[in-house]
Amino acid sequence: MINKKIIENQILQAVEMVKKTNPMVGSITNSVTINLVANAQLAVGGAAAMVYLPDEGEFLARASGATYINVGTLLPIYEETLPRTAKALYEAEKPWVLDPVAVGIGELRTKLLMQFKEYKPSVIKGNASEIIALAGLWNLEGGIEESKVRGVDSTDAVSSARTAAVALAKCTGGAVFVSGETDLITDGSLVAFSHGGSHFFEKITGAGCSLGGVVAVYLSAASPFIAALTAAAVYNLAGKRAEDKVEGPGHFQSQFLDELYKATAEEIAYNKFEIEEE
Amino acid sequence: MINKKIIENQILQAVEMVKKTNPMVGSITNSVTINLVANAQLAVGGAAAMVYLPDEGEFLARASGATYINVGTLLPIYEETLPRTAKALYEAEKPWVLDPVAVGIGELRTKLLMQFKEYKPSVIKGNASEIIALAGLWNLEGGIEESKVRGVDSTDAVSSARTAAVALAKCTGGAVFVSGETDLITDGSLVAFSHGGSHFFEKITGAGCSLGGVVAVYLSAASPFIAALTAAAVYNLAGKRAEDKVEGPGHFQSQFLDELYKATAEEIAYNKFEIEEE
Amino acid sequence: MINKKIIENQILQAVEMVKKTNPMVGSITNSVTINLVANAQLAVGGAAAMVYLPDEGEFLARASGATYINVGTLLPIYEETLPRTAKALYEAEKPWVLDPVAVGIGELRTKLLMQFKEYKPSVIKGNASEIIALAGLWNLEGGIEESKVRGVDSTDAVSSARTAAVALAKCTGGAVFVSGETDLITDGSLVAFSHGGSHFFEKITGAGCSLGGVVAVYLSAASPFIAALTAAAVYNLAGKRAEDKVEGPGHFQSQFLDELYKATAEEIAYNKFEIEEE
Repeated sequence: MINKKIIENQILQAVEMVKKTNPMVGSITNSVTINLVANAQLAVGGAAAMVYLPDEGEFLARASGATYINVGTLLPIYEETLPRTAKALYEAEKPWVLDPVAVGIGELRTKLLMQFKEYKPSVIKGNASEIIALAGLWNLEGGIEESKVRGVDSTDAVSSARTAAVALAKCTGGAVFVSGETDLITDGSLVAFSHGGSHFFEKITGAGCSLGGVVAVYLSAASPFIAALTAAAVYNLAGKRAEDKVEGPGHFQSQFLDELYKATAEEIAYNKFEIEEE
Repeated sequence: MINKKIIENQILQAVEMVKKTNPMVGSITNSVTINLVANAQLAVGGAAAMVYLPDEGEFLARASGATYINVGTLLPIYEETLPRTAKALYEAEKPWVLDPVAVGIGELRTKLLMQFKEYKPSVIKGNASEIIALAGLWNLEGGIEESKVRGVDSTDAVSSARTAAVALAKCTGGAVFVSGETDLITDGSLVAFSHGGSHFFEKITGAGCSLGGVVAVYLSAASPFIAALTAAAVYNLAGKRAEDKVEGPGHFQSQFLDELYKATAEEIAYNKFEIEEE
Repeated sequence: MINKKIIENQILQAVEMVKKTNPMVGSITNSVTINLVANAQLAVGGAAAMVYLPDEGEFLARASGATYINVGTLLPIYEETLPRTAKALYEAEKPWVLDPVAVGIGELRTKLLMQFKEYKPSVIKGNASEIIALAGLWNLEGGIEESKVRGVDSTDAVSSARTAAVALAKCTGGAVFVSGETDLITDGSLVAFSHGGSHFFEKITGAGCSLGGVVAVYLSAASPFIAALTAAAVYNLAGKRAEDKVEGPGHFQSQFLDELYKATAEEIAYNKFEIEEE
């Protein structure tokens, strides 16, 4: 039987550790939402550093508590930067988050996402369509290479990505986070569901990217599964609270950052979730 | 005689269609305001996707309802990405918006803007100085190549760009949007004027860029002339409403996004405009 | 004896001049905070223009009242753009601000920061760790090349950077701005201290970068020392006022821009500072 109390306690400790130590997290992420990623990482207690160049990526990989790699808006130099950074992370046994944004679009993206299989991202975070498509690309169970990815939007339900998520987690030995109305987080043997959030997450750009950046913050203080579950809890809690106080997406973004900042370790640990064995 | 009722009805339909179908719009745009462009596109009901690489630009050109190209902060790869994307748009007969930011500055910008003449942008949106300078670059009536463009700011009045705007619209067979205190929109035979907006549009960065991005959203649901007029209406309406509620540019940006989100199809269609034959 | 009255008057004149003339400032700056840099420059009364390409950097260097160069997120093209822009600034005797973000990380950054010594930045702005590390890189008194720079965060106290700051100012003939809880500004013979600000400056990304961009705005209307002192005053004033009105970092950013916009020349000139001879 799964002991939720133990898990809640691990979430509590992860949040407290981050608030106390302000771990530096390196990110190579898309330019549309790079500012929100950094601000969300700061709001929960982390420190943010972003780079583009290969040797700087390698440096950050080694110097950071954890690293966030988002393939959203690829630049030519990323052909060099991303594999070298992922390799440095793997070799230094440093945890990292992969956000396979828009998997299936463009040659470079496909090539990079194929290469990442070898470097075993600690957490893979995506919407249902992205998770299914990545599993397809990696030839895993539950994957469909002919993805229905539509830019950053998902056209699949979270539940339909469960098999792919479990297969990806078993492949990397880490965790997989499928974001959606109810978030699904799995380490391949446990499957957790986290509730809350806001319909405004789809009306601002960067809710998903900044979530990935925040997973990386907690990843410097907890296991992949706990880090993903902690990030889900704080996003679902802060998203719901922010939505209740605003009328539109402009103020939602400000309020959401405020709620990320104000949420206590207890509130985050006791935010509603279910857990079951796969 | 021009029937305003018909035009109002077309605006109404464009807004309703966008709110209902959430059309995906691709953008290649400058990094200063890329986040606001995406957030404005989402606020009015569209979906946003941004890229930098040539094959991704071509992919988006074909997959999107419409595309927004802004030459604000050029990167080296744009020498390849922008012409290939514009060509793909032209060949697929997909509508697109050109924002000739800072026309006249730098060799690559001039070269790209010359090339775009061939690919006939559906809507050209700029301030008066940019419209006059682009008409000059394309050797059209009303154009002056020795532009008075000063970064992103206009030093010319909207009315002084009327001849150039009409000439550009006749050249492309699309529409031209001259932004200013009173916006001028023309398809070469009709000239419309849209009122409202806010003095804060000049105190935040990206009011103009995000307007271009929003024109592209409506362009996936309406003709160039109607799309431009619809975007002018929602910007003028939301800008005025936001200004009335805030004390400075920081809160203006949040409030403006809220107002873009809240404006109804009726309110947008009946926002004040005049129309006359050229 | 130092006459504070004269300095206050120079600050007053710098602010009034900027509000009246809206000087255009060119920036080559990092992509994380580029939007906040532009918005802060607009809020205090400047006009903003950002570029990436070498010939555009040279153009802006000559066309702008002053230029801001921030080495935060380097792109490959910067190997060409930054030295050519700095050279154009030096040869045209145009003032510019150097923000040596993350000095010590990566080969290109080190190479560029070495080259800048020759082109004599009018104001160098950094946190204590960055100032000490840059002085070390330039082989100046008070410098330590083995920097303790941790991304964008300082691990040294402002006071510990005084010797390095004075040495850098003497080397360039300009001013140096060490940001921190109490800001230190020196032209090599005078040392001023400016008070205020907010603990939220560390909870949003870009407080430091946008400060550098605002120094550049005032640099187009005042001497390096006065420009730096003016920017310190408006940031300390607006930061304190904004903090008093908000609960978290999201609303802090909006409120801070509002306060930058609303602060009058008198309020800025009479914000608390001390001054002494070195």
